[in-house]
Amino acid sequence: MNPTAIFDYLQGLQTRIVEAIELVDGKRFLHDSWQRAEGGGGTSCMLEEGNVFERAGIGFSHVIGNKLPPSASVAHPEAAGRSWQAMGVSLVFHPRNPYVPTVHMNVRFFVAEKPGEEPIWWFGGGMDLTPYYGFEEDAVHFHRTCRDAVAPFGEQYYPRFKKECDDYFYLKHRKEARGIGGIFFDDFNELGFEQSFAFQRSVGDAFINAYLPIVQRRKDIPYSERERDFQAYRRGRYVEFNLIYDRGTIFGLQSNGRTESILLSMPPIVKWRYDWKPEAGSPEARLYSDFITGRDWLTEHK
Amino acid sequence: MNPTAIFDYLQGLQTRIVEAIELVDGKRFLHDSWQRAEGGGGTSCMLEEGNVFERAGIGFSHVIGNKLPPSASVAHPEAAGRSWQAMGVSLVFHPRNPYVPTVHMNVRFFVAEKPGEEPIWWFGGGMDLTPYYGFEEDAVHFHRTCRDAVAPFGEQYYPRFKKECDDYFYLKHRKEARGIGGIFFDDFNELGFEQSFAFQRSVGDAFINAYLPIVQRRKDIPYSERERDFQAYRRGRYVEFNLIYDRGTIFGLQSNGRTESILLSMPPIVKWRYDWKPEAGSPEARLYSDFITGRDWLTEHK
Repeated sequence: MNPTAIFDYLQGLQTRIVEAIELVDGKRFLHDSWQRAEGGGGTSCMLEEGNVFERAGIGFSHVIGNKLPPSASVAHPEAAGRSWQAMGVSLVFHPRNPYVPTVHMNVRFFVAEKPGEEPIWWFGGGMDLTPYYGFEEDAVHFHRTCRDAVAPFGEQYYPRFKKECDDYFYLKHRKEARGIGGIFFDDFNELGFEQSFAFQRSVGDAFINAYLPIVQRRKDIPYSERERDFQAYRRGRYVEFNLIYDRGTIFGLQSNGRTESILLSMPPIVKWRYDWKPEAGSPEARLYSDFITGRDWLTEHK
Repeated sequence: MNPTAIFDYLQGLQTRIVEAIELVDGKRFLHDSWQRAEGGGGTSCMLEEGNVFERAGIGFSHVIGNKLPPSASVAHPEAAGRSWQAMGVSLVFHPRNPYVPTVHMNVRFFVAEKPGEEPIWWFGGGMDLTPYYGFEEDAVHFHRTCRDAVAPFGEQYYPRFKKECDDYFYLKHRKEARGIGGIFFDDFNELGFEQSFAFQRSVGDAFINAYLPIVQRRKDIPYSERERDFQAYRRGRYVEFNLIYDRGTIFGLQSNGRTESILLSMPPIVKWRYDWKPEAGSPEARLYSDFITGRDWLTEHK
């Protein structure tokens, strides 16, 4: 169990993703490092008003504490009271062009230690895609890349974590999926430390290949106010999910986390409109009927 | 104890406010009535893209059930298992002109009954103002109208419910007040039924006088993209408050309430921007330094 290796991996991953996005966008990220009074800190990188990305945030954080509160470890009551550290990279990229989907990716590690006892640790993470105007080709590519990232560790992982993703990114009050899913895993240590860490690296490393080809394919599609308007409306669902359901966001805000880093995920411009529904048969209606339905993309497209 | 009289009062209040706002705006509200499968229903009235109001929603609802869950009555465990009804009028008006403040008002009544026992009931409600560009005159007028509404029932009520309002409409993760406050009361039955109901009516009746003179004074002030931009940014705080903290919103969404009616409060267009701060000495900075500071407006202006 080697937190330093994970720390180094996560910092490197943030740097690689920042560089890849800057190459596509042409604009540089702002880098903002911060310290946490209770221990630890992080670096938030933000690109706003870019050429391709209207708001793209990627944060690295490493937070440490000397006594884990019981409320933070419901699934692991034996970890309460231990010294602990949590680290992760989390990103949400909101493109300007409504034909390019919004994406979220997160990889994280938690460990609680006590002298003379085995450490309690786990990995978590995943990535998921939120299109406005969907393309089957993109959905299949994204899911295939996710599957290929976890397949070397066992054939069971993609279906299991695809389902966890669909279950997690669901807006109960709308009876709607947030997007077309991807993979999501948490409390993951079943492969032992070395292989579980390799699993996390494989997911983190897959992100650029999962997302950037989609950006390249769609970023120059012409669009008008109509598509921008639908994008702004649908981004409201992203806000609702993150503020009402997302565990990381809610825990961060309640535990005195750094608000601007936690809310990196918020979209740049959002609209709400009363009881709006897309016209039957319209491209906007296809998002609801053909994409955010929990489809099994890879069974349909071998 | 007469729920029918409250029902009639609340429906009438909604109608009066709708008519008053239509007179100012020149555009009509959409009226949308709905039924709840478990019992009860309501009417949501919405004005979008008006001349003065960009999004103004006012909802009436009357919800009934035959067995109150214990989780819904933590403050009154003796009410669990009883048949119950809850009714209220709730509004949030988002003006287009950034010099006109956003306003929220709510009046509500709850009763839990059991044959052969005294009913358990209480009133709740209040109103609060959220300016973008503040005017002391407006803040004093709003608070004075609130004070005058509750003063006939006792001099203690305005200071007590002014403080409850400041405490409630507070964004802990921003260490910021939502606006300049007003009054907020809950679990209110200490004057007996007739006088407690009169208290609630006095608050509801005061709303139009508290808010419309401010709208009239500010609605024609010229503004540019700069003020619209700040308004959209500050509306983000409204979204954050309502989705993260507001008890009514969270309870409604969790309890399978009607989502579009609950989210009447969402602003029409909202922006998020990383770690933005107003320039020192700017009109935007004055909001933070001079208005949303929990000031005691009426002690300063007798």
